[in-house]
Amino acid sequence: MGIRTAVAGASGYAGGELLRILAGHPEFEIGALTAGSNAGTELGAHQPHLRSLAGRVLEETTPEALSGHDVVFLALPHGQSGPIAERLGADVLVVDCGADHRLSDAAAWERFYGTPHAGTWPYGLPELPGHRDALRATRRVAVPGCYPTAVSLALFPAFAAGLAEPDVVVVAASGTSGAGRALKPHLLGSEVMGSVSAYAAGGTHRHTPEMIQNLGAVAGEPVTVSFTPTLAPMSRGILATCTARARPGVTAAALRAAYEEAYADEPFLGLLPEGRWPATSMTLGANTVLVQAALDEAAGRLVVVAAVDNLTKGTAGGAVQSANLALGLPEELGLTTIGVSP
Amino acid sequence: MGIRTAVAGASGYAGGELLRILAGHPEFEIGALTAGSNAGTELGAHQPHLRSLAGRVLEETTPEALSGHDVVFLALPHGQSGPIAERLGADVLVVDCGADHRLSDAAAWERFYGTPHAGTWPYGLPELPGHRDALRATRRVAVPGCYPTAVSLALFPAFAAGLAEPDVVVVAASGTSGAGRALKPHLLGSEVMGSVSAYAAGGTHRHTPEMIQNLGAVAGEPVTVSFTPTLAPMSRGILATCTARARPGVTAAALRAAYEEAYADEPFLGLLPEGRWPATSMTLGANTVLVQAALDEAAGRLVVVAAVDNLTKGTAGGAVQSANLALGLPEELGLTTIGVSP
Amino acid sequence: MGIRTAVAGASGYAGGELLRILAGHPEFEIGALTAGSNAGTELGAHQPHLRSLAGRVLEETTPEALSGHDVVFLALPHGQSGPIAERLGADVLVVDCGADHRLSDAAAWERFYGTPHAGTWPYGLPELPGHRDALRATRRVAVPGCYPTAVSLALFPAFAAGLAEPDVVVVAASGTSGAGRALKPHLLGSEVMGSVSAYAAGGTHRHTPEMIQNLGAVAGEPVTVSFTPTLAPMSRGILATCTARARPGVTAAALRAAYEEAYADEPFLGLLPEGRWPATSMTLGANTVLVQAALDEAAGRLVVVAAVDNLTKGTAGGAVQSANLALGLPEELGLTTIGVSP
Amino acid sequence: MGIRTAVAGASGYAGGELLRILAGHPEFEIGALTAGSNAGTELGAHQPHLRSLAGRVLEETTPEALSGHDVVFLALPHGQSGPIAERLGADVLVVDCGADHRLSDAAAWERFYGTPHAGTWPYGLPELPGHRDALRATRRVAVPGCYPTAVSLALFPAFAAGLAEPDVVVVAASGTSGAGRALKPHLLGSEVMGSVSAYAAGGTHRHTPEMIQNLGAVAGEPVTVSFTPTLAPMSRGILATCTARARPGVTAAALRAAYEEAYADEPFLGLLPEGRWPATSMTLGANTVLVQAALDEAAGRLVVVAAVDNLTKGTAGGAVQSANLALGLPEELGLTTIGVSP
Repeated sequence: MGIRTAVAGASGYAGGELLRILAGHPEFEIGALTAGSNAGTELGAHQPHLRSLAGRVLEETTPEALSGHDVVFLALPHGQSGPIAERLGADVLVVDCGADHRLSDAAAWERFYGTPHAGTWPYGLPELPGHRDALRATRRVAVPGCYPTAVSLALFPAFAAGLAEPDVVVVAASGTSGAGRALKPHLLGSEVMGSVSAYAAGGTHRHTPEMIQNLGAVAGEPVTVSFTPTLAPMSRGILATCTARARPGVTAAALRAAYEEAYADEPFLGLLPEGRWPATSMTLGANTVLVQAALDEAAGRLVVVAAVDNLTKGTAGGAVQSANLALGLPEELGLTTIGVSP
Repeated sequence: MGIRTAVAGASGYAGGELLRILAGHPEFEIGALTAGSNAGTELGAHQPHLRSLAGRVLEETTPEALSGHDVVFLALPHGQSGPIAERLGADVLVVDCGADHRLSDAAAWERFYGTPHAGTWPYGLPELPGHRDALRATRRVAVPGCYPTAVSLALFPAFAAGLAEPDVVVVAASGTSGAGRALKPHLLGSEVMGSVSAYAAGGTHRHTPEMIQNLGAVAGEPVTVSFTPTLAPMSRGILATCTARARPGVTAAALRAAYEEAYADEPFLGLLPEGRWPATSMTLGANTVLVQAALDEAAGRLVVVAAVDNLTKGTAGGAVQSANLALGLPEELGLTTIGVSP
Repeated sequence: MGIRTAVAGASGYAGGELLRILAGHPEFEIGALTAGSNAGTELGAHQPHLRSLAGRVLEETTPEALSGHDVVFLALPHGQSGPIAERLGADVLVVDCGADHRLSDAAAWERFYGTPHAGTWPYGLPELPGHRDALRATRRVAVPGCYPTAVSLALFPAFAAGLAEPDVVVVAASGTSGAGRALKPHLLGSEVMGSVSAYAAGGTHRHTPEMIQNLGAVAGEPVTVSFTPTLAPMSRGILATCTARARPGVTAAALRAAYEEAYADEPFLGLLPEGRWPATSMTLGANTVLVQAALDEAAGRLVVVAAVDNLTKGTAGGAVQSANLALGLPEELGLTTIGVSP
Repeated sequence: MGIRTAVAGASGYAGGELLRILAGHPEFEIGALTAGSNAGTELGAHQPHLRSLAGRVLEETTPEALSGHDVVFLALPHGQSGPIAERLGADVLVVDCGADHRLSDAAAWERFYGTPHAGTWPYGLPELPGHRDALRATRRVAVPGCYPTAVSLALFPAFAAGLAEPDVVVVAASGTSGAGRALKPHLLGSEVMGSVSAYAAGGTHRHTPEMIQNLGAVAGEPVTVSFTPTLAPMSRGILATCTARARPGVTAAALRAAYEEAYADEPFLGLLPEGRWPATSMTLGANTVLVQAALDEAAGRLVVVAAVDNLTKGTAGGAVQSANLALGLPEELGLTTIGVSP
């Protein structure tokens, strides 16, 4: 008998990706599936690609519906995870794909989200220095945002090795699934196809403080982040271009060595061969972050580009990876490094 | 009788866009159309959207085929414009959409292109301070690169007003037509659809010295540019995200005022209302650059995002705009500020 | 002073395309712009590509707002055109882009639309045999549906020449703008990118009776139409594949001759050279229908494929073409046969 | 120790998909990977999404390189499989993803391919009546074409139940990967994005005789097929719309019952709930064919629409399914019915 697992928010994109991964995982047994306004309908009406679960009826997202499981994945709008989690037993593994418990700085939370801070849970990015151990045996996991996953894993080797000044510029392109299934005009196919657009620029995107938190912890000093997200005409994927001024004396060889060392034992982090740059298609459906780094000597800057599937490693795959750790399972179980392409 | 006009490279994407614009222009009369390996075939085999010209037969690109015209537009691979132009009369207006005559720094040319420098022609970006007058009555025009068009027009107001430190980071997404009709595996539809990828990162893209030249001239001091181009799944359009540290004391109001003033009399430059960010679809087929600027106080940086159609204002429309100036016609003649959307 | 022109439904896709064309038309002067729920906002918030009109404020769609114009274009949800039109003077040219007045068979209207029939206006497809004269000097025009435009113009030569049996199969792919700006889950970018889907199959699409009406009139006998629409991952364009059994003795030469003759004097209809098949990109933004026809001798069927831009010739361009006729202007005025590509 | 498996054509799209599936299959052990002009390079240069195999060096496709394996998958241009297969032992399972051995009618082969017929192998479509048993214990498998997979599985229930007249019209949209990695201008991203186009219409596509063969065998009489393929702006997926006149007296209930019965025990065939129509995204990366059928009473026709991933069930997944059967493994082993979406 498997590990009894519930998914809240099963009709959304993150919920669908969780189910795709869980359905192929050898240890999890899929239990309750819950939703908000879609409660009472069949999963197949919303996620027709999940054939074997198509007939499952969605329950309403309540603590009662989610009780009686060993693991509960929450894929809910921010602000909804805290109250639900409080009602689930302390022995239940709760993996929150929402933002509520990611930030340790309550003031930053309130500045960017405008609501009271719900608290801080262990941060589900095992590859980030110092985080893996905190995830073992925890019963609460805050799954990182998709952009911070890409940016933090792209830049931590440079900061860990002391190669970068703490003034980072990030411009990232995301597929539309990052915005969820929200019925907003700018997310209509007619609007997004054939067009790249900027949004939440000028330091207003809510993932900014999460990047600052992660990179500052690695750098050992405050780091500023100028973050500009853009929306690209694709359903999935993030390509994050990250730059920082190089510390004096940094060489291209030292840069590459830092990444080779940092990624050497990480199954889900890949440094591409020299001269090849990432494409999001390399990671589609896989739990990987693929990276290339270069030193631009004329500009005096490090340039690091990372590709990730925002729904897989950027959300649901990362969530399962942390759940594996928390449950004492092999970290890689049920996760693939092979993408779907072309 | 119109102005007799030839287009060299008529079967390529830049050539096709030139013909689309010229066909709707009240003064130009389309004469010889030439091509390289496609010589001898009908234009309609390559540009079936140009219905009224579909039956025209492409001649081989030679000085002879191009002679006898008042204006010659060259849309050729770099390195081919110089020899052709030398053979055309000094009284013929030659508008070069290639790179050969853009850079004034011969050493920069040779470093990035690896061939001898062909010389410097008046630079076809009338909106850039000091350039419009040089284009009046010239008989040689170097049309800017598509990325430098977006970046230079996005950032010149900040530099002209002394608001930015001379250390620029640019990350730009381009549609695939920017790479031309080259038969390369990474440009296949199966590869580009659903994927954003980086290329020529780390300071190696050939448009970098052109940005340095333009911004340095406005700033009055050397400017470094870290430029990362990315390829997005769309045929047309560039979205350029440009940042620089703000000079001490810069305010959001001062930033906006600088842009309002700089763009006030420019028909093809548009500052979006506050809070709205550009999308490439806003400019598709139009000769416009649409821009938004913000001050990220926490990061201490200016963020300026510009959208442009790489083939229109970024190449062929810009070329016709400069030709209008050179011929003493109204600068806006035959050019539209209205895009095709959705 | 131009012809005073109002557009109702200016914030939608059809309305935007009308304005794009009207803005470049030498005779029309754009007056009132009206909308439903978007009334009171600036046009630029919805149609940022229409730069020169961006500051116009949308009025509410009422007979009062639309009065005082020579021409009124209605781009409204079906059912709304009739009541508005009744309140506009009989001397005002009313061009209805909606469905209300297209069908002459009231029973067919009620079967497919479920509401009382509003009446029949001259049908705005000048190329269809017998229709051009009815449009001259009319003050009411029913603009055809986008699919019937493609299918009727693709098949009328075959029926007019007696080459086809009256049992037609049509499968057409449409871009998402055909569904308008409706906030429906299946129109989200995440859903439509990378996917082709069928909808309203099995004879239920409301454009079916319009095809039956048009083709039956040309054939001189009842025609059945099996119509399957599909949604393709593009913003614009329809590619309609139309087949019918060939009448006995039909040859490929006779088929081609029929099309050459039927299209010979039509500026907006194009028969491609033999062996080339249409792509929607050939017609993007142009007022053209491009067609190829073949005889499949083994299957005993004619195959005719047509490409059209659903918003241009399929809606707004066709509307302006009919308005030109009704106003005694040259039919081609302000309309282009040159598309935007790639 | 697993079943030693070689893949010829490993740098192409079909080869890549084979490797994606084989890498997750519990019984196959990946041995030699071969290629044509890409021999000598690393797999990762062509298939960067296959992380765990990225360092494998491609050998030249020769009988020697492919010998010593229990199973050899051939993903080669047509005409190349026959000579290779002849040199592999009769005890080796050879699974040919190419066209060479699909047709039993040598004259049809020669008419469509223009070369001598290489012979006929058991046809790898287990769901087609009468085919599953022939695949058990065979050592040669002809994998069906992608279009015939969709069309044959969409229509066999209607013909098996005697509901359809033997005169079929098929219009299918395919993603670009169906054309392979060929460097042809019409496959460039700039050309295919934003556009649907027809090709090989009028009965000339080489998959036509394969459909005729399959459907005729089920119908028990000759069947004609009018087949029009179209190219859609997506990398993967086929949506096939198939119609035929309904036999007299056919009801919607009888139609649905025929499909429910025919698909009941087939794990990879799915009939959607009434009223829902297939989208290719429902099948992306999955080994499924999803179908809906309707009776259009007014037109007197059956309409059946099928979605399939051309690379998975349409090629590589179907190949592995047949290999499972041939090797006595469970037919579903290593294959998923869950797609990747959005």
